[in-house]
Amino acid sequence: MSDEKRTEVSDLGEFGLIDHLSKEVRFYNSSTVKGIGDDAAVMQIGDELLVTTTDTLVEGIHFDLSYMPLKHLGYKLIAVNISDVAAMNAIPKQVTVSLALSNRFSVEALEVLYEGIQMACEAYKVDFVGGDTTASRSGLMISVTALGTTTEDKITYRSGAKENDILCVTGDLGGAFIGLQVLEREKQEFLGNPDMQPKLEKYPYVVERQLKPEARMNVIHELSELGIVPTSMIDVSDGLASEIFHLCKHSELGAAVYEDKLPIDKQTYETAAEFSMDPNTCALNGGEDYELLFTLKTEDFEKIKNHPEIHTIGYMHSADKGKVMVTRNGNTIALQAQGWKHF
Amino acid sequence: MSDEKRTEVSDLGEFGLIDHLSKEVRFYNSSTVKGIGDDAAVMQIGDELLVTTTDTLVEGIHFDLSYMPLKHLGYKLIAVNISDVAAMNAIPKQVTVSLALSNRFSVEALEVLYEGIQMACEAYKVDFVGGDTTASRSGLMISVTALGTTTEDKITYRSGAKENDILCVTGDLGGAFIGLQVLEREKQEFLGNPDMQPKLEKYPYVVERQLKPEARMNVIHELSELGIVPTSMIDVSDGLASEIFHLCKHSELGAAVYEDKLPIDKQTYETAAEFSMDPNTCALNGGEDYELLFTLKTEDFEKIKNHPEIHTIGYMHSADKGKVMVTRNGNTIALQAQGWKHF
Repeated sequence: MSDEKRTEVSDLGEFGLIDHLSKEVRFYNSSTVKGIGDDAAVMQIGDELLVTTTDTLVEGIHFDLSYMPLKHLGYKLIAVNISDVAAMNAIPKQVTVSLALSNRFSVEALEVLYEGIQMACEAYKVDFVGGDTTASRSGLMISVTALGTTTEDKITYRSGAKENDILCVTGDLGGAFIGLQVLEREKQEFLGNPDMQPKLEKYPYVVERQLKPEARMNVIHELSELGIVPTSMIDVSDGLASEIFHLCKHSELGAAVYEDKLPIDKQTYETAAEFSMDPNTCALNGGEDYELLFTLKTEDFEKIKNHPEIHTIGYMHSADKGKVMVTRNGNTIALQAQGWKHF
Repeated sequence: MSDEKRTEVSDLGEFGLIDHLSKEVRFYNSSTVKGIGDDAAVMQIGDELLVTTTDTLVEGIHFDLSYMPLKHLGYKLIAVNISDVAAMNAIPKQVTVSLALSNRFSVEALEVLYEGIQMACEAYKVDFVGGDTTASRSGLMISVTALGTTTEDKITYRSGAKENDILCVTGDLGGAFIGLQVLEREKQEFLGNPDMQPKLEKYPYVVERQLKPEARMNVIHELSELGIVPTSMIDVSDGLASEIFHLCKHSELGAAVYEDKLPIDKQTYETAAEFSMDPNTCALNGGEDYELLFTLKTEDFEKIKNHPEIHTIGYMHSADKGKVMVTRNGNTIALQAQGWKHF
């Protein structure tokens, strides 16, 4: 075996790996509308479209139980999958949860995890319909699949943006990343001095952004009430810049973002300073915000311009103009997409 | 924490744990027809029913890569999920695959795994539409979700059996379990003497039953052509006896099985003898056969009595008569359901 070619997964990265492995995929069913390459897969069933998305969280890679309570983990698991359903402009209906766990976890611990799952199911009005529970040799791994429905006239892909569409993002960015820095710092201090209590009360917002993110279903319902269908949409899980790159790639466009339009909460801003971090970099590359990034036709701007949770941050232009950020002092610089690297 | 109650997952077992954790589940959507407790969950979408099932395989628990080639593993993963779709009398349409893997696995190794996945997708005409690939701290874990569609007049639950319905099983039983014994023995011999080649050519059928099981979609299509809708159905993943217990529990009935009707392949029979195992016990409690167990109205018997792959093994009777096996010498003994224990 030693003379065989060996390519490390880390050489390709997560997205490269998925592209590489899925390039041979063929479809056998005319009902399959969309496969790999968006926030969710799509199947036509009668007059409706079913969207399916799946996300796996692994202990020691995606979460650290020393500061992530099991109830929050359960909630987050559901929320991050609902966020992908939202990004298709669909309404979530069902989730399944698969667990693999070592004997370190008691039934009581799992009850707490399930409490969080059920809290999220109630919050998003989604039904927990099945799953699988099995042993693992070490640690906890959870895989969630979420199903939602929408219709042909509402479904929103990454690929639908057009030149001059305005680029919008919900809520604020960078908070979850800064929350993680706070939690990591307190963990290190606790390991050095186990009598110390974690000092989190100064950072309630950013810690909650990390521990209990919310899917932006409220915005999906509001856009529907306003009669707006975004031309393209994606959820912000890997950092704003990385998601802008996805929209540009699938829509074959470039984009311009204004630095001074990036929505950043005051606590994110101040805490970033405490860590000597640039808050804009946190917003662009931090990840785990689970906000929605979408494009709108310019004529829809009037309908959302006063919405407190929807921020216009830029616009789409032709691919040859690139993916750029206009800085506060008016310079135009190339946008960098760093994203998350798990490998 | 030390004075808090701690219940081990192994005290409840897999089914007990699922029952325990799901007892608080509430539904928010009228479209949810069936949640936890069958081979798949069910959602109403227009005039169709969507079935969803998920299954997770963990290295060191469910498979051993020292004798399970990655291509076979990929194939098996898809087949076992399709088997659950089949057990709802539904047609599989889409699968998603989530992987968590350590850096032990190269891109080339994953290509081989995906080859197996795509072979199975082609065999079952199911579309590979998405998933998730992430790092793990150790080993390989794979979670597959399969989606299928059917209609109200065709869907088959565990709960629909009636008294006097005949009990049928497809194919033959116990082979996958015996195949596993052969593979385990060869592994032990190899560990003792690494120069030895595994001697598997004497056991092609049982080894294939373990390494490359097939979902019984052919029987689903044939039943449809015969105009037959089973009154209840389940797939045989944990052993025939355990599955009979599930049908009885959900249909609130008992069942009688004839020992001399258990379909056992000649190679399974002979290899069991080699291991000093009772072939009937292998058939009843072996697991991983992925055959279909179903009940039919007596009037449907004529239509299937000459089908080479459908075997009538007993009948349903009232719950007070219990779950029994009629032995070759005419004795009636209580059926024991041992099933698989992963915890």
